[in-house]
Amino acid sequence: MYHHVKQLMYTVKVGEADPRFGNMLLEQFGGANGELAAAMQYTIQGINTPDPQLKDVLMDIGTEELSHLEVIGTLARMHLKPAAAARKAAEADPLLAITGGGGVNLYNSQGSAWTADYLKITGQPEVDLRNNIAAEARAKITYERLLAFTDDQGSKDALQFLMTREITHMKAFMQALEGLGKGPLEIGMLPPTPGLVDQFFNDSTGEGQEGAVDMSTTWARQNGFEVVESPAFHADQMEVDGPTGARRRRSSAKK
Amino acid sequence: MYHHVKQLMYTVKVGEADPRFGNMLLEQFGGANGELAAAMQYTIQGINTPDPQLKDVLMDIGTEELSHLEVIGTLARMHLKPAAAARKAAEADPLLAITGGGGVNLYNSQGSAWTADYLKITGQPEVDLRNNIAAEARAKITYERLLAFTDDQGSKDALQFLMTREITHMKAFMQALEGLGKGPLEIGMLPPTPGLVDQFFNDSTGEGQEGAVDMSTTWARQNGFEVVESPAFHADQMEVDGPTGARRRRSSAKK
Amino acid sequence: MYHHVKQLMYTVKVGEADPRFGNMLLEQFGGANGELAAAMQYTIQGINTPDPQLKDVLMDIGTEELSHLEVIGTLARMHLKPAAAARKAAEADPLLAITGGGGVNLYNSQGSAWTADYLKITGQPEVDLRNNIAAEARAKITYERLLAFTDDQGSKDALQFLMTREITHMKAFMQALEGLGKGPLEIGMLPPTPGLVDQFFNDSTGEGQEGAVDMSTTWARQNGFEVVESPAFHADQMEVDGPTGARRRRSSAKK
Amino acid sequence: MYHHVKQLMYTVKVGEADPRFGNMLLEQFGGANGELAAAMQYTIQGINTPDPQLKDVLMDIGTEELSHLEVIGTLARMHLKPAAAARKAAEADPLLAITGGGGVNLYNSQGSAWTADYLKITGQPEVDLRNNIAAEARAKITYERLLAFTDDQGSKDALQFLMTREITHMKAFMQALEGLGKGPLEIGMLPPTPGLVDQFFNDSTGEGQEGAVDMSTTWARQNGFEVVESPAFHADQMEVDGPTGARRRRSSAKK
Amino acid sequence: MYHHVKQLMYTVKVGEADPRFGNMLLEQFGGANGELAAAMQYTIQGINTPDPQLKDVLMDIGTEELSHLEVIGTLARMHLKPAAAARKAAEADPLLAITGGGGVNLYNSQGSAWTADYLKITGQPEVDLRNNIAAEARAKITYERLLAFTDDQGSKDALQFLMTREITHMKAFMQALEGLGKGPLEIGMLPPTPGLVDQFFNDSTGEGQEGAVDMSTTWARQNGFEVVESPAFHADQMEVDGPTGARRRRSSAKK
Amino acid sequence: MYHHVKQLMYTVKVGEADPRFGNMLLEQFGGANGELAAAMQYTIQGINTPDPQLKDVLMDIGTEELSHLEVIGTLARMHLKPAAAARKAAEADPLLAITGGGGVNLYNSQGSAWTADYLKITGQPEVDLRNNIAAEARAKITYERLLAFTDDQGSKDALQFLMTREITHMKAFMQALEGLGKGPLEIGMLPPTPGLVDQFFNDSTGEGQEGAVDMSTTWARQNGFEVVESPAFHADQMEVDGPTGARRRRSSAKK
Repeated sequence: MYHHVKQLMYTVKVGEADPRFGNMLLEQFGGANGELAAAMQYTIQGINTPDPQLKDVLMDIGTEELSHLEVIGTLARMHLKPAAAARKAAEADPLLAITGGGGVNLYNSQGSAWTADYLKITGQPEVDLRNNIAAEARAKITYERLLAFTDDQGSKDALQFLMTREITHMKAFMQALEGLGKGPLEIGMLPPTPGLVDQFFNDSTGEGQEGAVDMSTTWARQNGFEVVESPAFHADQMEVDGPTGARRRRSSAKK
Repeated sequence: MYHHVKQLMYTVKVGEADPRFGNMLLEQFGGANGELAAAMQYTIQGINTPDPQLKDVLMDIGTEELSHLEVIGTLARMHLKPAAAARKAAEADPLLAITGGGGVNLYNSQGSAWTADYLKITGQPEVDLRNNIAAEARAKITYERLLAFTDDQGSKDALQFLMTREITHMKAFMQALEGLGKGPLEIGMLPPTPGLVDQFFNDSTGEGQEGAVDMSTTWARQNGFEVVESPAFHADQMEVDGPTGARRRRSSAKK
Repeated sequence: MYHHVKQLMYTVKVGEADPRFGNMLLEQFGGANGELAAAMQYTIQGINTPDPQLKDVLMDIGTEELSHLEVIGTLARMHLKPAAAARKAAEADPLLAITGGGGVNLYNSQGSAWTADYLKITGQPEVDLRNNIAAEARAKITYERLLAFTDDQGSKDALQFLMTREITHMKAFMQALEGLGKGPLEIGMLPPTPGLVDQFFNDSTGEGQEGAVDMSTTWARQNGFEVVESPAFHADQMEVDGPTGARRRRSSAKK
Repeated sequence: MYHHVKQLMYTVKVGEADPRFGNMLLEQFGGANGELAAAMQYTIQGINTPDPQLKDVLMDIGTEELSHLEVIGTLARMHLKPAAAARKAAEADPLLAITGGGGVNLYNSQGSAWTADYLKITGQPEVDLRNNIAAEARAKITYERLLAFTDDQGSKDALQFLMTREITHMKAFMQALEGLGKGPLEIGMLPPTPGLVDQFFNDSTGEGQEGAVDMSTTWARQNGFEVVESPAFHADQMEVDGPTGARRRRSSAKK
Repeated sequence: MYHHVKQLMYTVKVGEADPRFGNMLLEQFGGANGELAAAMQYTIQGINTPDPQLKDVLMDIGTEELSHLEVIGTLARMHLKPAAAARKAAEADPLLAITGGGGVNLYNSQGSAWTADYLKITGQPEVDLRNNIAAEARAKITYERLLAFTDDQGSKDALQFLMTREITHMKAFMQALEGLGKGPLEIGMLPPTPGLVDQFFNDSTGEGQEGAVDMSTTWARQNGFEVVESPAFHADQMEVDGPTGARRRRSSAKK
Repeated sequence: MYHHVKQLMYTVKVGEADPRFGNMLLEQFGGANGELAAAMQYTIQGINTPDPQLKDVLMDIGTEELSHLEVIGTLARMHLKPAAAARKAAEADPLLAITGGGGVNLYNSQGSAWTADYLKITGQPEVDLRNNIAAEARAKITYERLLAFTDDQGSKDALQFLMTREITHMKAFMQALEGLGKGPLEIGMLPPTPGLVDQFFNDSTGEGQEGAVDMSTTWARQNGFEVVESPAFHADQMEVDGPTGARRRRSSAKK
């Protein structure tokens, strides 16, 4: 059950409204890496998990993201206000100006409606926590970029607050992942095929524009991989696990 | 530049076609965590990055995922073939049966068209590599679940091959992330606000259905966080960074 | 700012899990007329409006809908649990079974991802309140239909609770609309063109299948309209407001 | 069966083409509240309903909206024409300029493709008519806002005509709703739970930015509701209908 | 301007309602190749084109497709009626059963909402007519497949009527294309680069599953192409047009 | 199986980065008629077809389109680079600037995510080849329009190369279609109803704005059609094929 208190989690002050910046802020309101995506991803994971400790952490953070949604929405709203009346300001976001009267809605900066396709929810704790770590990293860099596009101090303060909290959450999810006690490559229950799992396929070769070169062979060997060079042409070097379960190499490239 | 060879990366054999399982396989063809999503995510990151080593690894793995797309597509195609002619089989996937004549297309198991909204691409290496680690973890668990829903040995062999490769890629992305030499919470360049970053907000309290309890306070303290209990009602305990940049707590919370 | 308590707004009990009914319940979780749509529509209207009383009502109801989202999500989760392991159950919702391990996500019963395109938010109070009245009416009828498709008493109790609350909200929005003190046809500030506004165009004529007949002429006259018969062929009978603002009829059908 | 006559329902004249305004006009061509949405919503309701009188009204108005679609499309087309050839004009709508040669298509002002997710069709007359009343209100305010963003007299005349017709339709739908003879809160057949239906939950409390205050308690009582204060913390005050159908209050907040 | 007459273009009779077949019929109502897509594609092309003869043909056929939309919608509606009340029938299309009361809406057979992304409109007559020829071919094959999935004579009659009309339209668009008087490879105004335009790149080589072989070299030569074998490895054989406009081959494969 | 070589198919050089032109180039990267759409359409058709020769041609061209995707992506990337740092440049594409750091992603010029709804894949060779011919024609005209919006020589060279290749592919698909040996109106196996197939319905009559007139009757007769004038009002003139299979005219039209 939810309760709402009218005080914002961070007080929002705007000097001069900047509709184009308000439009940019929508990335964190109705955008792919924004606060609704975070709130829904963690909350729904929380509804799904039977693990009480994980559920608690997910609901704590999911609920905080709802409070962030309110902060960023209020901030964007203040910047977009002129779009209701002034033609020039309306051009910064014609969709919100005309259909929304300058109010916010769940769109990104280019008017794409928020979609649950943004969410990454699998019901597997060691996967979902990785999804969440990545989501927090994305949100952090998005706030950092928004900070670079405004000089308004009130906006900067609010964005700095929100950006900071993403790191807090990232840390919490990393600790929750560690708390699961699984190995760094252990996902689910089925083991990968031995041998094959240690092969790195060098599928991109040669040299390209602006210094692109083929460096992965050396790198992969240094990192403990066996390297298969150009497997499309050397398919016989791949470790393939046949119907009997026995490890074997594909006997010839052309069957 | 790409070259295609007609041999599949893994030979696909199907005993008896199972259209409903073919429909399920679409999750890894045109679904959110499927092979096209992986191929596009890594390849486009590869096009964007100026780092030659990272570009090389991304293009290697992105290209391999294209070969996987072909394998899973061929496997699904073989299972869906009866949908072209038999009404009962067509009911397993009416969209592919009627618009596609039983051939595959970039839909998931419930007919949603593949969308680039599935992709997580930020242009920031330490973020993109976390996106990729999470993506590989999702693909791994998806293959594991598909393996549970078929008894066909040829299908199982191909899925085991593809599942294994996801772990290989996950490992490679983890090593590439490590190779960047950044701290585990270091994303981008702007530091989070000290103090505030170490506060855990206990936003979800009480007890609920099926044993849901409030455990995060203890857990968060054990993990080095300062805990703010129910910040909606104790806003004065939050560390807020004001316009002067000085750390301070919100002086009062008007409820 | 939001706070979450773990107790559900309505305790959810399920006798025997029914995955196909769990799938149907998604209509009110991630569907077009579901609880997230309601929560977001009202909450975002609340963020946008400068009217303190309207804001308060919108935030009250928007917050309650979040609590409903949690109830319906928990209920659907309980019905979908078998989809994680059993092939037959998985066929009830292959998307959730395979990508979600039988957990809920923001999809409708046929796997379409929730989208903000479902929302109707205009920033004009007399319009938004009509949007909300219609939204509550849709949610009410959806719950009524779901009630017809299950015999499980615990599910029925929860759905009856949720259905009832929609009528409560519908009433509240109707009273808020009345409280604005505008006429029943007064939307925004610009008046419609007199004369033209009272013309009903009989654009569909003749008789059709299953008793379809042309009855609107009589009906429209009884309701105070002037009727223009088949305006495509009698364009000269339409009241057209020219550049001078003077009322006039189009002088001839063919210009 | 449809017949088309080439004369527009309202003759469209444009002084100087204004591509950015043409782009804005798309909101009523391919946008969420536009003429195609109206035409399809009413026409499909008309196909579905067995009630001959309602069907007739729905087909009359649905057909008129198709004629409006043609008017607004022709108007937008005239404003967008320069986008085919001039780079500056093309920037007003690069999607239409490049893929459409400056012609219109079913996108909104920010290039989102029209989707049937915009439609509200339930097959229940007292719900669908409320959907239609709300839809007409949205269309009216959208035209009003478009009128504020142009000085071109020919465009203003056409928009005034279209805006007026929305009020006509709104009135017709209100009369059709009244003609159904159902009570203002009567939706479908199942009654809401007595007692519970009259409770207003005060889920949002306290004071916030820009004068946000907690006023709904007084307002709700004045409107005949029983008020439950902060139900997340006082769950025992909610009227809950248990398995026996007997009205009772939840006996304690923490079960 | 449009006028509607209530008689259907083809009288629809259904023996026994078959909800799963009704669901399949949605492909031609709200699906990618369905009647709305056809109606909108041709009508909008008609609004855009300045050519009076082409406009007339496009509006004729676009209007006929609206009449087809009504026929297929009525047919699907009759088959879906039981979904309103019977749980088993509802499972054939839970989305329409629950949100639509068994009425039709603009979804395809798997519940994806109709989207303008299905449309192909370019504003270039020789391109749009090819888009339309392809669209009619798709609609024809879709009707043919639907015919294979029902034994109901009334449904078959209606589908045969609709299928026939697609061929009529295909023929009309082919004649309109011929009437433009452009060469078979003449698109727009800019000529392709000579030499390069006649090179066929053999980008896929080798042998694969189920008899896949490399046959295109011979085929391409027989059809007048110069063949570049495996251009990824023989980039020097491609005709490249440099900054001076002079034809030349890329001097070396590895730059 | 795929192999990637780092050399681009066409070397990309950009004089001065032009972010708004970079944004426009996205139409051919992540847009409806772009290179990914082409690559996926042909490749998936190739996976589905059992015809070895057709498969080979489809895989050859599908693979080349992947190489084009890389070229256009690299070109757009170079133009968009300034969007990462400069506010003005960021306004050219706020979505890519903020979420992507100025890197490309699978969006079109107005930020709509690439969707498989763009693809036309039917599994019927004579239909798919027409889909492909139309797709190539669209891509050709799109490149032609992009060429008109830049003066940068390096960009023009690359676009000319890519545009040329579309004509090459169009020719190849036309020859493949001819090679099937089917008649120009022969789609699938079921014949259309004789008589009815030769009727042209004159559904749009009268005169309209900017010279729109009713010319199709003459044109249709010249092209061998029997013309039915205004069939909505003269339904008795349509050739209808009844349940007995006998050709007959609808005996009466009740208006």
